[in-house]
Amino acid sequence: MTRKELFQQMTQKQSYLCVGLDTDIQKIPSHLRSADDPIFEFNKQIIDATADFCVAYKPNTAFYEATGAKGWESLQKTLEYIPKNFFKIADAKRGDIGNTSGLYARAFFEQMQADAVTVAPYMGEDSVKPFLAFENKWVILLALTSNPGSQDFQTKLLTSEKPLFEQVITTAATWADADKLMYVVGATQAEQFHKIRQLAPDHFLLVPGVGAQGGDLQLLSQHGMNKQCGLLVNASRAIIYASANKDFAAKAAREAQSIQQEMAIYLEKYL
Amino acid sequence: MTRKELFQQMTQKQSYLCVGLDTDIQKIPSHLRSADDPIFEFNKQIIDATADFCVAYKPNTAFYEATGAKGWESLQKTLEYIPKNFFKIADAKRGDIGNTSGLYARAFFEQMQADAVTVAPYMGEDSVKPFLAFENKWVILLALTSNPGSQDFQTKLLTSEKPLFEQVITTAATWADADKLMYVVGATQAEQFHKIRQLAPDHFLLVPGVGAQGGDLQLLSQHGMNKQCGLLVNASRAIIYASANKDFAAKAAREAQSIQQEMAIYLEKYL
Repeated sequence: MTRKELFQQMTQKQSYLCVGLDTDIQKIPSHLRSADDPIFEFNKQIIDATADFCVAYKPNTAFYEATGAKGWESLQKTLEYIPKNFFKIADAKRGDIGNTSGLYARAFFEQMQADAVTVAPYMGEDSVKPFLAFENKWVILLALTSNPGSQDFQTKLLTSEKPLFEQVITTAATWADADKLMYVVGATQAEQFHKIRQLAPDHFLLVPGVGAQGGDLQLLSQHGMNKQCGLLVNASRAIIYASANKDFAAKAAREAQSIQQEMAIYLEKYL
Repeated sequence: MTRKELFQQMTQKQSYLCVGLDTDIQKIPSHLRSADDPIFEFNKQIIDATADFCVAYKPNTAFYEATGAKGWESLQKTLEYIPKNFFKIADAKRGDIGNTSGLYARAFFEQMQADAVTVAPYMGEDSVKPFLAFENKWVILLALTSNPGSQDFQTKLLTSEKPLFEQVITTAATWADADKLMYVVGATQAEQFHKIRQLAPDHFLLVPGVGAQGGDLQLLSQHGMNKQCGLLVNASRAIIYASANKDFAAKAAREAQSIQQEMAIYLEKYL
């Protein structure tokens, strides 16, 4: 999916919501547990219920790997099930030396047909470039994450007086442009969005941490939006676990719709 | 496996060799490709052939994920096949927010029965700690890697005038001691080993980059060894692809033995 196509989906749906499919076998409603593939069954119903209100889905690979080869199959089926007009993100946070990163890229872009993979920057250029070699596919590079540990290294100042995450953003911008590269910026770091927009005016930002982690949607929309929206805001638990009962899909839809309606206001106001 | 047990294996075998099971379906001998599970069949023969000369095995997960759910099964079978007296490393380079890292830890420590997982430090303490919560299991944290991209961020100086990788080592040392935590330090960075030993005198270092990537085994042994050896030196391609023919296992054994014999000399000289 191209940047233009993604933006078209956003204006059409009045949404920049990404639904995080962090599907934990221990948290899905009990009536689904007897299904052949409970994780896939849950995802299917969540996708059907939320499709009108979001533009992207983001399964985090950890939840699937935790159940072994069977989980890997559930992940593959889930990515296949998501319709073509959605932006599909494999939240894998991979990164390895060049030829090995190339294998991860094949796994997620070819086997899984994901549009994008999240990548960790620590190992530098040759660990990221193999993901950039695939046409019409995206790298979403970790820059400033939403967790407390982001303060351990990401915000440490370099001798240039820039924090590490800014160096990551400016260095990576020399590897690929805004048609191939996005950055992860946590919603809990709303005060940083203004600065990040100066460094990366055109790039999309994938923003986790709204909802359960306490990010402020209005604030980050105000400071983070650019002319092509430039934001993909992820919510996982708040949507997919809105109910633990048989009405889980309906409740997920309602939660997704409520976020979408808020987003429509910010698109009107800040775009 | 405890640090003491690992050191016992090393003195017994006169080896600190780790064999990297970076098994690429496209590189294994053609006569194996008709096997039910060619990757596992290859690994099994490599393990049988090299077991006398090494103390650890390290499958890199990228090679298994590249073939989907089937690859994940090959990885599981491989880890199950490796005898208990070997140190089993899942080279996964994972790292995510706390609860999600916990799922990766379960995948590799419980499902796969690995002794250790390689972890990326960029997301900080809460991304690493869940891996440290498992008894008798290890985190091997990326510090200074062997690839060219290690120069992009890892060696950047912080305002403290320390490079980032040193900050990673000293910060992580406050999270766990040398009985739970190792560091990845590339063999191509031999000039750094002396400095790293000052920062982490007791920790084991996992050292990739010997062989194909050009690291110098003598130099890094001289500067990196401590009283409990403190080194696990990995070789992958040089051993497992020593031959592409029916004699691949015999050739792998010969290559592993040659490295082991060199190691025996350095254990005598530098321990």
